[in-house]
Amino acid sequence: MTAAVLLLLFPQTKPSPIEMPFKAPIFSYLLISILSAVFLSANGRKALGLRHAADGVDDSIIYLWPLPKQISYGNRTVTVNPNLVLQSKGPGGSSPIVQEAFGRYKSLVFSQQSGFVLQEYDISTLTVVVDSDDDTLYLGVDESYDLYVSDATGSTEGKLSVVGEASIEAKTTYGALRGLETLSQLFTYNYKTKAVEVYKAPWYIHDEPRFPFRGLLLDTSRHFLPVNVIKQVIESMSFAKLNVLHWHIIDEESFPLEVPTYPNLWEGSYTKWERYTVEDAHEIVDFAKRRGIHIMAEVDVPGHGKSWGIGYPDLWPSPNCTEPLDVTKEFTFDVIAGILTDMRKIFPFELFHLGGDEVHEGCWTSTGHVKLWLQEHNMTAKDAYKYFVLRAQDIAISHNWIPVNWEETFNTFKENLNPQTIVHNWIGPGVCPKAVAKGFRCIVSNQGVWYLDHLDVHWEDFYNNEPLEGISDIEHQKLILGGEVCMWGETADASDVQQTIWPRAAAAAERLWSPRVTTTAAILNNSVLHRLHHYRCLLNYRGIPAAPVSNKYARQPPVGAGSCFTQ
Amino acid sequence: MTAAVLLLLFPQTKPSPIEMPFKAPIFSYLLISILSAVFLSANGRKALGLRHAADGVDDSIIYLWPLPKQISYGNRTVTVNPNLVLQSKGPGGSSPIVQEAFGRYKSLVFSQQSGFVLQEYDISTLTVVVDSDDDTLYLGVDESYDLYVSDATGSTEGKLSVVGEASIEAKTTYGALRGLETLSQLFTYNYKTKAVEVYKAPWYIHDEPRFPFRGLLLDTSRHFLPVNVIKQVIESMSFAKLNVLHWHIIDEESFPLEVPTYPNLWEGSYTKWERYTVEDAHEIVDFAKRRGIHIMAEVDVPGHGKSWGIGYPDLWPSPNCTEPLDVTKEFTFDVIAGILTDMRKIFPFELFHLGGDEVHEGCWTSTGHVKLWLQEHNMTAKDAYKYFVLRAQDIAISHNWIPVNWEETFNTFKENLNPQTIVHNWIGPGVCPKAVAKGFRCIVSNQGVWYLDHLDVHWEDFYNNEPLEGISDIEHQKLILGGEVCMWGETADASDVQQTIWPRAAAAAERLWSPRVTTTAAILNNSVLHRLHHYRCLLNYRGIPAAPVSNKYARQPPVGAGSCFTQ
Repeated sequence: MTAAVLLLLFPQTKPSPIEMPFKAPIFSYLLISILSAVFLSANGRKALGLRHAADGVDDSIIYLWPLPKQISYGNRTVTVNPNLVLQSKGPGGSSPIVQEAFGRYKSLVFSQQSGFVLQEYDISTLTVVVDSDDDTLYLGVDESYDLYVSDATGSTEGKLSVVGEASIEAKTTYGALRGLETLSQLFTYNYKTKAVEVYKAPWYIHDEPRFPFRGLLLDTSRHFLPVNVIKQVIESMSFAKLNVLHWHIIDEESFPLEVPTYPNLWEGSYTKWERYTVEDAHEIVDFAKRRGIHIMAEVDVPGHGKSWGIGYPDLWPSPNCTEPLDVTKEFTFDVIAGILTDMRKIFPFELFHLGGDEVHEGCWTSTGHVKLWLQEHNMTAKDAYKYFVLRAQDIAISHNWIPVNWEETFNTFKENLNPQTIVHNWIGPGVCPKAVAKGFRCIVSNQGVWYLDHLDVHWEDFYNNEPLEGISDIEHQKLILGGEVCMWGETADASDVQQTIWPRAAAAAERLWSPRVTTTAAILNNSVLHRLHHYRCLLNYRGIPAAPVSNKYARQPPVGAGSCFTQ
Repeated sequence: MTAAVLLLLFPQTKPSPIEMPFKAPIFSYLLISILSAVFLSANGRKALGLRHAADGVDDSIIYLWPLPKQISYGNRTVTVNPNLVLQSKGPGGSSPIVQEAFGRYKSLVFSQQSGFVLQEYDISTLTVVVDSDDDTLYLGVDESYDLYVSDATGSTEGKLSVVGEASIEAKTTYGALRGLETLSQLFTYNYKTKAVEVYKAPWYIHDEPRFPFRGLLLDTSRHFLPVNVIKQVIESMSFAKLNVLHWHIIDEESFPLEVPTYPNLWEGSYTKWERYTVEDAHEIVDFAKRRGIHIMAEVDVPGHGKSWGIGYPDLWPSPNCTEPLDVTKEFTFDVIAGILTDMRKIFPFELFHLGGDEVHEGCWTSTGHVKLWLQEHNMTAKDAYKYFVLRAQDIAISHNWIPVNWEETFNTFKENLNPQTIVHNWIGPGVCPKAVAKGFRCIVSNQGVWYLDHLDVHWEDFYNNEPLEGISDIEHQKLILGGEVCMWGETADASDVQQTIWPRAAAAAERLWSPRVTTTAAILNNSVLHRLHHYRCLLNYRGIPAAPVSNKYARQPPVGAGSCFTQ
């Protein structure tokens, strides 16, 4: 919605154009006013109110995923012109990221329009207002947006609508992207009229994410995933408003990434074709940024480093002890520093994952020169583990990165971790409450419910995992950055990774995006399953092979013939 | 290769530019001469000769799928410019189909080149010569091509090469498409030099399909497949040189297609969103044509028509007998005629599938008015089945279609079928020999080995299915049009259809494309598995979720971490 439109509706609120040409706070205030007015009006419109019961009638459910923060709608149907024009406004409206996204969504939404045109459409222009021309993508970047779709009644008197208008107003490019996704889900192809329509207009939506970190881990070490496949995953993440791809690039099985400073490292790849060049990595970062998605790279040290030694055997304590990496050698830390120096040029995200999980020090203490070194330095094996993690943290921090570490590091040496550390939970449900109580920030990935490779975990379990569970102090709650679902790759390769991720990752995505009251209400009113079926089918329409929702084990095929909307 | 190049190589063969500017017969003759020369030369080059043993060394295997008819190569490596330019020649060179295909393959092949450029490349131009400007796609259209990649030695003396040349010469647009696919498989990204390279240059390939009909059945009745998913399947078919998508649109479970003449028919769709408009169908036909792929539509009568009666209950013999369609009513044949009239405007392919399988006439004989009608017409139920099939054939033929029918029609009434009928085998291995002996043409789809929904059938069984098995008479052999693998949809939806199809469909694709001597030799020399692994990984690189080759049951995930090239 443009400021001009607002002024038309509410001339008394006219802001100084110099002071606040497109300020969202004013807009939000107006929106709440509008929402209240609509909620209270008796002209057939209804507000969602989140107690909206699922009654089995499709049309009573709002098929948006994830559910927005504030929402109001009417009861009219408007048509959308397949030649929809983008009108960009505001300092950031001309961002190529917005322009490209508009093109992508237009081709998704109007893919079935070929050759069929009505005489008249209600909505022919989409106005996108972006307040800032700064396209920097950082953790916590403003992703809020206000979305408005007119009901095309042609009268403003008591109707709060403007003919032929659809608009998105956002503070940043990335808010505009989120608004475009929501708008694309309001657009429905009508097979009778052969037009894209918006039901229940007019729409007023104010939306913003609950958590700034809404992640998905991809593991390209257990199986190499081609760049095209990673792009498909990133594209589908944007449909669910997930915003962090945690790229677990390297592990003990293979080292697929090119590191120019240590060019033999990718000798640890499975084959000479299962590799990522520096250019590939740049391409992935750029592709993700254009969808508002961060790439958080991981170098998992010292426990998962076996593949490093294919190129540089000195990194192994011995041929019989190939991990953890050799803690005694400066060369080990030189290599880590080299990797991070090279990676810093690729990955602009301010978080960097250093792993630190599953360190089995027994291998160190059973290797002669390491045992000797421990004695000389008066260290236990646990001390050496801490020494390694903290040195790696120092290297990351020296590159202006915030270190993220798996929870064993916190579980083992707590306050000894650098205070900047973000603790990444995975083992069980209890660690984030403890970490935030100690002042650390935390990311939730409780394996019992958010590990996608656990095929027996159903979408309900993903949906019900509440990141703030067990944390009552509001200041502590603020330290929960969000959460992440993890797609470990032992049995997930290019052939099945997408149907292992979807639709269950979407369940977590709504938990992480929508207000807690919204997800709680959605469970209570039993509407979630209907909406998730619908969302899974939407992904299928977009060419994403999301698996049936109701299968016994994830990624299982449908058990028999039937509709996508019930399987 | 351009005529100019040929003239340079063989000035003595200079044709009159008026008579035969780019005639392939001349070219083929030259090619054979070249092949012979290379085969006999002792300068380090070797000819494939099809007895080339798989020795475990990757570089000894020719990673092309399906294998071309004639092939020769050298031992040099040449680089390909990421800004490769298409030089179109001949009357059909300017076809937009060729231009678009070049763009598609370029973006596939050079997807990893972003920002990285060498100073010099050996191959900067691809010349594509197309002899005919007729883009009509019909069964048996010439798909042959000749492919040449220079070894860039810069000397013609005794080397038969020209600097900086790659060329494809074809009689038709569709031959050029097949050549582009083969060329794209010769292009390999080198992770060290960061250039796309062609190994074993120079290459001379002459190729053409063994069978004109190389099909894949998709079933959109048991599960609706969105248009984007059908397009993904078509795109992947083109990578394997399959050329007929048998679209089993409608069955007893759902009727998803719009039929303007009988607009209630698609009331039989699962939901109002699981439908294909006429525009969708046109879009699919057009998308396929641009990849040299026919769409053979099927209307399976009378046995699989239950869903028709949702919109028109009169088509059911009774509410308790919902199929076969009511044989007694003229309305039934009016509806079939209406459907075929509407479909004829969409599907230009000269074959149309009328089904005719699994007709359980017991339902007819237990329905009062049908039983009476049979008595009045002095017909048995079998007679009525024949009457139905023949009337449907007449309707199809009146629309200038060649009718295709499942084998029960032939098994039941043999010579009574219209002599134009193409018999479509599915039940077992013996029917095509019988059908061709009676003068019918035949398509092989033996369910024991070519049904993709049979998950326990391994790629070897797909590969070993010889369409001419049991047919020794050469005139009879000519009546085998080819074969088709069938992807029945009971447990295949948008989430898993591609990994159920691939890689096994590729095994059949090579059987149908490559000369029999080639596939026989490939089995004997044990190179097939290596090549199929490689081809499956190629599909993954292209974003197609082809499943592991060596799984116990089709579409199963890999059992553990590892390389794509061995799983």
